[in-house]
Amino acid sequence: MIKQISHLGLAVKDLEKTMVFYRSVLRLDPAEPIVGGNERDLSVSLVKVGDATLELIQPIKETSVMAKYLEKRGEGIHHVCFEVDDIDAELEWMKSKGLEALGTPKPGAEGMSVFLHPKSTHGILIELVQKGKE
Amino acid sequence: MIKQISHLGLAVKDLEKTMVFYRSVLRLDPAEPIVGGNERDLSVSLVKVGDATLELIQPIKETSVMAKYLEKRGEGIHHVCFEVDDIDAELEWMKSKGLEALGTPKPGAEGMSVFLHPKSTHGILIELVQKGKE
Repeated sequence: MIKQISHLGLAVKDLEKTMVFYRSVLRLDPAEPIVGGNERDLSVSLVKVGDATLELIQPIKETSVMAKYLEKRGEGIHHVCFEVDDIDAELEWMKSKGLEALGTPKPGAEGMSVFLHPKSTHGILIELVQKGKE
Repeated sequence: MIKQISHLGLAVKDLEKTMVFYRSVLRLDPAEPIVGGNERDLSVSLVKVGDATLELIQPIKETSVMAKYLEKRGEGIHHVCFEVDDIDAELEWMKSKGLEALGTPKPGAEGMSVFLHPKSTHGILIELVQKGKE
């Protein structure tokens, strides 16, 4: 089952510049960037907003999916990540309802995670994460 | 100052269909639709996800900004709403930093709210709300 919103992923072209904006204009506190993504093709800064988190994501390889996204759609809100209690059971349920997973669950910074194709979710790129699972 | 994420606004073409998806596939509980928007040009269903809220928004007038958005961008995540402690002070601060407000704060379901133009926020349509203020 879905427990809560884990984070919101934001596609950005220039992470350093965006972090300055978040710090000086929104008066939030972006963390030091870390290299992420399954292909280590992203630079990511996490920003806490109350109990929620924003993920500022800049592609650092031109071949990354995020680079293509930015080219096509420009900067903006890229995905929403829902925390689930059991990612395998949840994914099996969603697939049985016709949703298409983008690959299989993979370990990430927060735990095991997987994306669902937006064509079957009313246009929203949904990530599911089970925290603490490796 | 920004306190937390108040909600996430999702643009949808068919609210009834989307609510069925949220109920039967995501196993969340969309509330009865209400008519909203400054021009009463939107039909909105709120979906609680843990402590956060998703706003499913369908335009009910072709002239609404949301109808134009859907035509141009398709369904997806439309905006993020940050709760602030003092909307007038926050807006004054952000304007002094070069951000452009879309109109002036107006009363809504949650309190006084205003949108900021995405051209000055790295592509993200940000709504600010001060809850309880009329």
